[in-house]
Amino acid sequence: MTAAPDPTTETASRADERAGALLTIDLDAIAENYARLGARLASGAQCAGVVKADGYGCGAIPVAKRLFAAGCRVFFVARADEGFALKPHLPDAEVCVLDGLLPGLVDDYAAAGIVPVLNDPGQVEAWTAYCAANEVAPPVVVHVDTGMNRLGLAMADAEALAEDGDALRAFSDVLVMSHLVVSEEPEHPLNARQLADFQHLRARFPKAKASLANSSGIFLGPDYHFDLVRPGHALYGGNPTPGQPNPMRHAVQLLARVIAVREVDKAGTVGYGATARIGAGGRIATIAVGYADGYLRSLSNRGEAWIGPHRVPLIGRVSMDLVTLDVSSVPPEDCQVGDFAELIGAHSGVDDVAERAGTNGYEILTSLGHRYHRAYLGEAA
Amino acid sequence: MTAAPDPTTETASRADERAGALLTIDLDAIAENYARLGARLASGAQCAGVVKADGYGCGAIPVAKRLFAAGCRVFFVARADEGFALKPHLPDAEVCVLDGLLPGLVDDYAAAGIVPVLNDPGQVEAWTAYCAANEVAPPVVVHVDTGMNRLGLAMADAEALAEDGDALRAFSDVLVMSHLVVSEEPEHPLNARQLADFQHLRARFPKAKASLANSSGIFLGPDYHFDLVRPGHALYGGNPTPGQPNPMRHAVQLLARVIAVREVDKAGTVGYGATARIGAGGRIATIAVGYADGYLRSLSNRGEAWIGPHRVPLIGRVSMDLVTLDVSSVPPEDCQVGDFAELIGAHSGVDDVAERAGTNGYEILTSLGHRYHRAYLGEAA
Repeated sequence: MTAAPDPTTETASRADERAGALLTIDLDAIAENYARLGARLASGAQCAGVVKADGYGCGAIPVAKRLFAAGCRVFFVARADEGFALKPHLPDAEVCVLDGLLPGLVDDYAAAGIVPVLNDPGQVEAWTAYCAANEVAPPVVVHVDTGMNRLGLAMADAEALAEDGDALRAFSDVLVMSHLVVSEEPEHPLNARQLADFQHLRARFPKAKASLANSSGIFLGPDYHFDLVRPGHALYGGNPTPGQPNPMRHAVQLLARVIAVREVDKAGTVGYGATARIGAGGRIATIAVGYADGYLRSLSNRGEAWIGPHRVPLIGRVSMDLVTLDVSSVPPEDCQVGDFAELIGAHSGVDDVAERAGTNGYEILTSLGHRYHRAYLGEAA
Repeated sequence: MTAAPDPTTETASRADERAGALLTIDLDAIAENYARLGARLASGAQCAGVVKADGYGCGAIPVAKRLFAAGCRVFFVARADEGFALKPHLPDAEVCVLDGLLPGLVDDYAAAGIVPVLNDPGQVEAWTAYCAANEVAPPVVVHVDTGMNRLGLAMADAEALAEDGDALRAFSDVLVMSHLVVSEEPEHPLNARQLADFQHLRARFPKAKASLANSSGIFLGPDYHFDLVRPGHALYGGNPTPGQPNPMRHAVQLLARVIAVREVDKAGTVGYGATARIGAGGRIATIAVGYADGYLRSLSNRGEAWIGPHRVPLIGRVSMDLVTLDVSSVPPEDCQVGDFAELIGAHSGVDDVAERAGTNGYEILTSLGHRYHRAYLGEAA
């Protein structure tokens, strides 16, 4: 976050003394990211909030409530469960379930006011039948696949739908959406090909609204914005423009408590598998975070942390509950039992951690652990 | 598990229709693994249960209650929080907190009857002072480091403790423990070196009980068993003897629901980043699991699943909420929307999945997701 709390004072004093690690989610930063993305949009385009996977690990309910307060009115989740959990907190927003309309759930969705994202002709048919039988036409999303081969109607099925008068009556409030495959790579030819296919499709549904862009898709330019964009990662501070400076604000800070400091009296190895060596006179700080907290094991011997102004490398393997840091270069008074080391924050954002772990920032976020003590800044009422 | 439920009938009928994925924990298998390990022990040695990290992702409370019913009386957790949550469910067992005695928590531990694992001289001193002031000597664990350089007293500090009459009065019911570094590699010379150091240490605390072995340590032979062994991974079905047949029973089954089946009408790429190609006429099944569920992103293009008797490879990247399987070789009637694909189970145990993901089985277990619908077989009252 822009103004990170001093790990040794403010944050620590707020924490329960038992906490092994403190995860702080800055909802004001998320709201500011929402505003920053909105300011980039083509005239008339709206900005949704993607809060699937428990709000990218940050807490779907507090995040969505804060985004609603910031003006967001359309939300996307993945699982039906996530939709049913979120909707009561956002009665005046559209909560759309990307997994689609699972068999047997039509009445449940309709009763709860959940918006299904229809992913195949069977789901279209089930929804059409429901609407005809009940003489209603609630909001609905039709997902068309333009290159992901994962979910969504094939183009031919979408074309057929555009000719189907019965279905279109049920779909008077419809959003047609598709999903970009390589939006993080602006030069990739697949972007333009998907855009052309989607423009063709949109012309077939003249009364529908349309949505194509995810976080990175917003930065491909106004042609990609249509009526609604659907950012996720960028809201949480992830960089939607890899290789360029990050235009978003950090929203996540992870501090882990130093629970031991060891003076190494004779040279030896550190951690499981004896994968790292340390010389006599070195110092090791052990912190209360491990891969069971979602601090990925692939960060073994590659992660880093910050203790006050000092950058310290991770040494040895990440173990289930613990990580060891080489603090030989840190003055002893700056690294004592009870102090906190910053693993994610202003010094090292989620994408930086991801790069060290050999993955993407999304996985770092969605892995954020359930043993962390969590605090929210800027919660909405 | 030995007798896996038929994914298409029993398990599915038990599940809520909304479930994207079903995680079944076989507590009877865990209890049998406990018995199998116990049967290998040297005469007089007891077997503890390690249930840290929410019982290796399987649920600390149901696992610990089932182990208690199977005769287990000593449990280890990592965080203080885990101890405070578990202890009320096991009033007659010892619940030991490996993170140690965090500053300011002495009275809380004592009041709750939690057993601290003392990891440094400061913690020894705090506990000694508490015991002297209250004229009590509750059970306590002293952790001595014999080569991990992570937590635990240095050998020299342990030797000093053995000479300290005041401390020893407070430590009349003490377990001295250490932690093996490379027990999965029986030929590694560090095992014998740690054993020798631990035997030396044990001789300095003639009245103490002693514990050295984790799961794999049990298989290093009776010299490593002492008074108490502390298996974790093997209880949950992980293989404590890598490279040899697994002597444990599988305890975890993960089924993910097929939410779409796509006939590929023209050759193209699959998933984010366009990392995989599929030809026209191929078929793709999309299942409701992703890296946000702890199905690691490193399984992209490397994982596998089983649909009935058919082994099917994962194709494309694991995405946040979804995985795509190449089901071109599966007869269409055997893979329909609503069916389940097995990702972890009898065909592919946690260690097999781990090998494909480039990690260990422990991380696969502790990453088991919170969106899965969970079912327990053989729950204790």
